[in-house]
Amino acid sequence: MKNVDIPSPARDVAVLINRRAVGHSLEADFYTSQKFFDLDLTAIFAEHWLFSATEAEIPDPGDYVTVGVGPYSVIIVRDDDDGVRAFHNVCRHRGSRILQDGCGSVGNLVCPYHQWTYRVDGTLVYVESQPPQFDRSASGLRSVHVRSIAGLIFICLAEQPPPDFDEVAAILEPYVAPFDLKHSKVAHQSDLIEDGNWKLVMENNRECQHCDVAHPELLTAYFPLFGYSANDIHPRIRPVFDRYRAAQEQLTQACSLTDFPRDGRRELDTRITGFQVSHMPLDGSGSSFGPNGDPVCRRLMGVIPDARFGDLSIHLQPNSWFHLLSDHAVVFRVLPLGPERSIVRTTWLVHRDAEEGVDYDLDGLTSVWNATNSQDRELVAGAQQGVADPGYLPGPYSMVEGDVEAFVSWYLQRLRAHVRS
Amino acid sequence: MKNVDIPSPARDVAVLINRRAVGHSLEADFYTSQKFFDLDLTAIFAEHWLFSATEAEIPDPGDYVTVGVGPYSVIIVRDDDDGVRAFHNVCRHRGSRILQDGCGSVGNLVCPYHQWTYRVDGTLVYVESQPPQFDRSASGLRSVHVRSIAGLIFICLAEQPPPDFDEVAAILEPYVAPFDLKHSKVAHQSDLIEDGNWKLVMENNRECQHCDVAHPELLTAYFPLFGYSANDIHPRIRPVFDRYRAAQEQLTQACSLTDFPRDGRRELDTRITGFQVSHMPLDGSGSSFGPNGDPVCRRLMGVIPDARFGDLSIHLQPNSWFHLLSDHAVVFRVLPLGPERSIVRTTWLVHRDAEEGVDYDLDGLTSVWNATNSQDRELVAGAQQGVADPGYLPGPYSMVEGDVEAFVSWYLQRLRAHVRS
Amino acid sequence: MKNVDIPSPARDVAVLINRRAVGHSLEADFYTSQKFFDLDLTAIFAEHWLFSATEAEIPDPGDYVTVGVGPYSVIIVRDDDDGVRAFHNVCRHRGSRILQDGCGSVGNLVCPYHQWTYRVDGTLVYVESQPPQFDRSASGLRSVHVRSIAGLIFICLAEQPPPDFDEVAAILEPYVAPFDLKHSKVAHQSDLIEDGNWKLVMENNRECQHCDVAHPELLTAYFPLFGYSANDIHPRIRPVFDRYRAAQEQLTQACSLTDFPRDGRRELDTRITGFQVSHMPLDGSGSSFGPNGDPVCRRLMGVIPDARFGDLSIHLQPNSWFHLLSDHAVVFRVLPLGPERSIVRTTWLVHRDAEEGVDYDLDGLTSVWNATNSQDRELVAGAQQGVADPGYLPGPYSMVEGDVEAFVSWYLQRLRAHVRS
Repeated sequence: MKNVDIPSPARDVAVLINRRAVGHSLEADFYTSQKFFDLDLTAIFAEHWLFSATEAEIPDPGDYVTVGVGPYSVIIVRDDDDGVRAFHNVCRHRGSRILQDGCGSVGNLVCPYHQWTYRVDGTLVYVESQPPQFDRSASGLRSVHVRSIAGLIFICLAEQPPPDFDEVAAILEPYVAPFDLKHSKVAHQSDLIEDGNWKLVMENNRECQHCDVAHPELLTAYFPLFGYSANDIHPRIRPVFDRYRAAQEQLTQACSLTDFPRDGRRELDTRITGFQVSHMPLDGSGSSFGPNGDPVCRRLMGVIPDARFGDLSIHLQPNSWFHLLSDHAVVFRVLPLGPERSIVRTTWLVHRDAEEGVDYDLDGLTSVWNATNSQDRELVAGAQQGVADPGYLPGPYSMVEGDVEAFVSWYLQRLRAHVRS
Repeated sequence: MKNVDIPSPARDVAVLINRRAVGHSLEADFYTSQKFFDLDLTAIFAEHWLFSATEAEIPDPGDYVTVGVGPYSVIIVRDDDDGVRAFHNVCRHRGSRILQDGCGSVGNLVCPYHQWTYRVDGTLVYVESQPPQFDRSASGLRSVHVRSIAGLIFICLAEQPPPDFDEVAAILEPYVAPFDLKHSKVAHQSDLIEDGNWKLVMENNRECQHCDVAHPELLTAYFPLFGYSANDIHPRIRPVFDRYRAAQEQLTQACSLTDFPRDGRRELDTRITGFQVSHMPLDGSGSSFGPNGDPVCRRLMGVIPDARFGDLSIHLQPNSWFHLLSDHAVVFRVLPLGPERSIVRTTWLVHRDAEEGVDYDLDGLTSVWNATNSQDRELVAGAQQGVADPGYLPGPYSMVEGDVEAFVSWYLQRLRAHVRS
Repeated sequence: MKNVDIPSPARDVAVLINRRAVGHSLEADFYTSQKFFDLDLTAIFAEHWLFSATEAEIPDPGDYVTVGVGPYSVIIVRDDDDGVRAFHNVCRHRGSRILQDGCGSVGNLVCPYHQWTYRVDGTLVYVESQPPQFDRSASGLRSVHVRSIAGLIFICLAEQPPPDFDEVAAILEPYVAPFDLKHSKVAHQSDLIEDGNWKLVMENNRECQHCDVAHPELLTAYFPLFGYSANDIHPRIRPVFDRYRAAQEQLTQACSLTDFPRDGRRELDTRITGFQVSHMPLDGSGSSFGPNGDPVCRRLMGVIPDARFGDLSIHLQPNSWFHLLSDHAVVFRVLPLGPERSIVRTTWLVHRDAEEGVDYDLDGLTSVWNATNSQDRELVAGAQQGVADPGYLPGPYSMVEGDVEAFVSWYLQRLRAHVRS
């Protein structure tokens, strides 16, 4: 009797990486197996810069958020010099979790088990009953790399973070800084657990072919020109196109007033810290995600000169995207929970002086993306179910799914680089 | 230090298959390990004909049911030519699940993600934004083998289904056709999740030694002769035996009126598509599962000539059994959910013109098997707990557990055939 | 492309056992991996004597408790000769669980599936439909080793139990017997599921450095001298120390009245059945865990001569600890449920003639340890979260965590012995 051939969730990952057909969705194991989940944690989430929080969440010294990246928990804390620090949320004594809450404020970081006490710069300042030869300086909290791009906080769990982050930060800074996110305030935050692999959440974000049917609320603010180009404008949509061109022109003028960079950049799969930035006008009154493109907050962000400032959209690999508008910003972070489960955090930011009930109301601010997130959650769950079915075969991306291909291509490059290293 | 010997859930399956003691229950791993669960899905559920639904559930074109077989989801749909089709419930684009519901009715099969649209014959008829060279004809839904035996729908996930199905269908057809299940209607359907391996559910069905104590409701309709034979009739039960002989005689006459086949067949472990059919008279008024053997529906099924038509009982390997009575049929389907979890669907069928509240009431129709299913659920859960205990040793089947042995013997033959192939 | 290096939960256990740094907490895998959980079940729980129940729980013939040790279920039952028996809770027919409840009383042990019937001594006395050659005597319940130390019941699942149990029993018997636990009664019992590996539960029990902050209720009865020794008494705590010395003297006298052994014994990691016994005076009125050291029950236990009899504390490896006081006893049992889940049973015993509402009230009896258990549960959960974090590194035990080191040292010795065997 020969060996029994049992379908294995742990087929050799290198074979799967190498045989992937360009322009097609990935094979099932990438989305369902524990082996690829472990590899993704190691090769992607523990080796790349991850958008994790906004500085607006920790305005004062001692303010902190904790971030769960797979099995890791990381403390991001404002130190006494207004800097941002990050540490593993683990005591150096017997390993207890130090902070249980998702956010809060502390004087020192005190372990609840035996009261080992660390300053917010990670220094160990108090322990009890250790022998005289015990060296406190060797037992500070273990730090995690942390950087902020104009108020957007990124961490990297690797010992040697990717070297191109400074370059990307320098590119993005001029786009983001005018919104002054660092001095904005958090109007709302939601966490949504999705029944799908983190890559399906990202792929879903990277195309809008599904928007027409799935996202009626989101689409009201955008020009209905999706999938068209200037070369094939049907007479029926000519009026829309003319309106779009006028809005583009106006946005260009608004940008030039403040030397705001006007060109987009697309480096999604041509560097380690892949990103894309684009700046599109909005339809209707052209201001924001309200009905007919109306504003959702009366205070403009930072030094934005004009309520009609379009949608500054940023995509970052592996786990985030951002919409910065004249009157608010909405930022998204995806983190993996398991092969078939992820968590999406959405944070709405407004000017720090904007008052709820006066300058904005919460429902008006959040309803479009709450609806969109919920719709995407259904789509991702359906996609996860399908790719987990042995009847699934990878299929071809359409002509408007180029950013999905770019995400997958970036992902496979990063796995290959990890395997080689 | 030698290697650590850790008890493994993945002991070599071939060893376990080969050392099984005939006439004894299987070793624990068969019922508890992920390895055998995966093997059962591959070697049994993906390679054999599975009873899946009844035609009565999809009377009209576009009517569908979805069937979950382990990680597979299969659409069974009535096509426009009154045929029955089956497809993998997975979109050929990026793999989304197409249908989420367990049953319903559609015009076309439209993927909710990007609206790829398929006819109910599987043909792809609409996609958007694919390049000109895209070949729709290569991207139809992937079909699954499907057959109906007089209204009982079977699917087979293998590329090459077992070749003996036609033979078995030809044998069973004359028994089933007179009940005209295809034109019956579904009076009720229940899904019961059981905390036990699918084989324990099947083994429980394949003996009635437990019935005496466990199933008081079910036993009212049957002659209390279980475990006896004509050769050892104790004087005390002589009157029961005489009553039984008379009922048998009457059943033979009823059969001969319509050329209904009278002999049973038992090929449980002598062929790939193992089955058994038997036709037993009922006690009391002899009609059905009502109190004292009374009818539970006033309309007789199909062309059945006599309300006293006994219980036509069919067993099929690997996952089903059926009771066809003069006034209703009740059919059972077992599907695996995990090493220690299964789902049992029970479907009650009556004549399509029978009216609830007039010809039958739901409680009268279903109470016996609802009670019996619930009692079996407890027994199966207790059996699962016991075999999962390291204190368990396989024990000897009794003289009235021959069909359990036949089931296990068939199962092991099929595993061996898979391992050889 | 080289093989992908994926972090494995199944790193070679021998390497981890051998590289453990003395005086430091264990590496993460010991607390989180399925491999070590399986090894712990095999090498620790299936090979050592486990405290399982008290004789007070099964006073009369036919009284039983069932004990779940990982996947094992064991019946502990009082037989007709007032002895204590233990059996695997699995039928010898097809393996069904026999008893579902955690405790109760039976005449015989009857399997609910096919009514195989066993006496409380394990003998098979009834089966149906087995062939004539069937040998009942070979199919009795499988027994499990069981012993009682003055009313504390221990089981051992190994075929050859550790040989030093008689020795340990002989040492402990004189300490325990005067409390006459065998003729006590169960006043209360609680089961607490903890989100932590069983070793973290034990380690938490084996030090009281966390008590100062975590356990205000428990500390009221103890002298606040924790961490001090007679050599370094600060003038500020001199009055406490003098009070403590007086209480010690009084306890010594109380012991001498009944020839109660006065010395402690500490053999936590110097033998297979590791244990520790110590006898400490209590503060305040010095009697029990009530406010100010007051009694919680008016009836004294067994032949205890004096209400001020301190706290006779016993620790046993691998899974139990005990506090025997003049007016009650509280005994603790830890059992593993999974790599990251355990169950702690606490049983409060009082004199069999003590009446609730008259001699004690339940809240007064149980509140201190209910509070303490609940506080420990939080600490253990936090410790589990921390050690499961890849940011965790084993840290140094303090000078007052010697019993934690002894537990870990014992544990590693036992793993090494298993690996060698």
